[in-house]
Amino acid sequence: MYKCNQSRLKESLEQFSRFGATENGGVTRLSLSKEDIEARNYFAECCKELGMELVIDDMANMYATLPGKRDLPPIMMGSHLDSVEKGGRFDGVLGVLTALEVVRTIKENDIELELPLTIVNFTNEEGARFDPAMMSSGVITNKFDKEKMLQSTDKNGITFLEALKESGYEGSIDNRLKEATAFLELHIEQGPILEAEQLEIGVVEGVLGMCCYEVSISGESDHAGTTPMKMRKDPLFLATKCISTLIEQLGSVDEELVYTIGRVNVSPNIHTVIPNKVVFTIDARHKDPKKISEVEDIIQALPSEEAGCFVRKEKLWGRDTVDFDSEICDQIEQACNGYGYSSKRLYSGAGHDAQYIASIVPTAMIFVPSINGKSHCEEEETTYEDCAKGADVLIETVLNLQTKFAISEAAI
Amino acid sequence: MYKCNQSRLKESLEQFSRFGATENGGVTRLSLSKEDIEARNYFAECCKELGMELVIDDMANMYATLPGKRDLPPIMMGSHLDSVEKGGRFDGVLGVLTALEVVRTIKENDIELELPLTIVNFTNEEGARFDPAMMSSGVITNKFDKEKMLQSTDKNGITFLEALKESGYEGSIDNRLKEATAFLELHIEQGPILEAEQLEIGVVEGVLGMCCYEVSISGESDHAGTTPMKMRKDPLFLATKCISTLIEQLGSVDEELVYTIGRVNVSPNIHTVIPNKVVFTIDARHKDPKKISEVEDIIQALPSEEAGCFVRKEKLWGRDTVDFDSEICDQIEQACNGYGYSSKRLYSGAGHDAQYIASIVPTAMIFVPSINGKSHCEEEETTYEDCAKGADVLIETVLNLQTKFAISEAAI
Repeated sequence: MYKCNQSRLKESLEQFSRFGATENGGVTRLSLSKEDIEARNYFAECCKELGMELVIDDMANMYATLPGKRDLPPIMMGSHLDSVEKGGRFDGVLGVLTALEVVRTIKENDIELELPLTIVNFTNEEGARFDPAMMSSGVITNKFDKEKMLQSTDKNGITFLEALKESGYEGSIDNRLKEATAFLELHIEQGPILEAEQLEIGVVEGVLGMCCYEVSISGESDHAGTTPMKMRKDPLFLATKCISTLIEQLGSVDEELVYTIGRVNVSPNIHTVIPNKVVFTIDARHKDPKKISEVEDIIQALPSEEAGCFVRKEKLWGRDTVDFDSEICDQIEQACNGYGYSSKRLYSGAGHDAQYIASIVPTAMIFVPSINGKSHCEEEETTYEDCAKGADVLIETVLNLQTKFAISEAAI
Repeated sequence: MYKCNQSRLKESLEQFSRFGATENGGVTRLSLSKEDIEARNYFAECCKELGMELVIDDMANMYATLPGKRDLPPIMMGSHLDSVEKGGRFDGVLGVLTALEVVRTIKENDIELELPLTIVNFTNEEGARFDPAMMSSGVITNKFDKEKMLQSTDKNGITFLEALKESGYEGSIDNRLKEATAFLELHIEQGPILEAEQLEIGVVEGVLGMCCYEVSISGESDHAGTTPMKMRKDPLFLATKCISTLIEQLGSVDEELVYTIGRVNVSPNIHTVIPNKVVFTIDARHKDPKKISEVEDIIQALPSEEAGCFVRKEKLWGRDTVDFDSEICDQIEQACNGYGYSSKRLYSGAGHDAQYIASIVPTAMIFVPSINGKSHCEEEETTYEDCAKGADVLIETVLNLQTKFAISEAAI
């Protein structure tokens, strides 16, 4: 079993953390920004140095390929180089740089590849500059309409199309990923489970289904000092009751359900004025669609009208649970066992490019622990040791998969 | 009994509603703004036309006096000409213009005054441009430190002192109100009680005591999709519990208690992120200080720490109940009865200049109904008929008070 080079991987991570470095040790590398383009250029250089052939598709997704002995669909690894505003040094980029480390280790050890091996960098995964998230993996798998995506604007009114043209990274639609033997995305967990259970690797079996609702309660503003309680139509009182009901009822759906009221806006939000409107969101995730359906029933069962106030529930969006390829999961788990790395199978609560790619390519993900479960912030952290263990599992899985597929191909 | 001239009062109200008129029938006449100065100039003209002597004090409070036969402390009437942003056409200005209408009726009927009669316009009652509210009545009654008030800045960074100098309305400290026989402030109710009970006049016995707290709950932000419920420190969950407790427990203090959670801020307020902080205010008002004290006990009894979150309760401010002069209230009630105007005694839940003036001068207030209880908004409305009835009660009370005080003075 090959081992990757931890110090080389560390150096590589440190190099990339300079592109968009923030004061407090994070990065701001919004998609197709100057900083993202610097990272892309440097990534392209690294790939070329390794003798990889680089192509770019019409959504600026980058594919760098090391040829194999057989002209078969490649095994693909990778993730994304963009970050959120004041994000961390690991989210996304770690998936690209562990893939690069895998290729370096292969070259260094003169390992013969049966199948081509491709590193991918997906454009605008975070959706932090251009809504929605996972835009470009979504376009190439027909989840999103490309024309609409091109018109998505950043906060300065620049469209994705304009940023694409400006970047120099607009390639050909012919280069889009159409076929691959497998796709492996290594990523930080962005949650606290691996660390809490002192595990080294997460074998990611899929991405949780979810729903997100916005509940708007309208009432009537009046003077806080002069309006008797009985004459009020206070939406904050009703919102409190609705949120209490949600917390109580969602709490008994299933212990694996996660639910969050993350956004609450009160109008006019003045201490001496009874509010006239309260709007809040409820985000819930679970792998079992029946549980999500139960959540939706609970939300819909909130009153439509009470105490002079009106309640509107709007589904902002939802996604079905995505199940990854069980054979690839088995390969990842075997690799962990081979190295003696502790692991567990889990579902990702966060979204990833892999969830869209899974619809066209056999896919799975590898998680490494996030210290304190933090991500999308400057405090995001994973030890270099854990990063290297992830790279080990990645190379072993890639090599075993290619052997397996080369053999099965040969058998036909 | 004299009756005021409704159409003249209407004309006067319409004239003043032009100073700072908004698109939707309200006014924006921030203190010492161009619009406020226009209103002040026109008010000064009106007073001079009526043969009144106008003096200005060092806080730009305006006092226009019609002399009486005796050189005794005046009976004073009035309110304020400033408004909030997009406020109504009645709040404040009605107290000044009914006072003007009283003087016009007195002149028209050649009524001989025993005591001088003064109309007052207090500066920056709303506190909408310069914090705090009731600034200038507060300064002349030693509730606020003048030097601090002069440094209060508006949203453009202009200090009250600068606005005062610029306005041309900075007068002499010698002109401050020091003594008066009585003070009467007529005002819209700003609440729904008179309208709901189909009453014409409110005899205001005082201003409710109040307390205002800010409750800050801090927890920990994490990813909404990846953090198991048991590992969360979600301040929104605890805030919901605290607010539920407050609503429940405050609801059983006393049926006359009013309490409002008007401002709620959630951080970072993103639907996919568990909040790390929730801050909300609780404003409660009652005439009985024991009830306010019960409220404070309930707020203080909220947990300081629970579910991994920390709760801080800070008293932003409070005020004691102000009781107005009972003899003046009797006079107002008798005037109502004399005209056959239905009335009830009540306390004001809102603050008024009268609450500070009451500490140096026997004071009471007259309320007229607010349609739908609305104020501080463009929809603020009172019928001209109700305005005129208020003016009637004002003139009758003024005349009865001056007779009464002139007689009592003569008896000494």
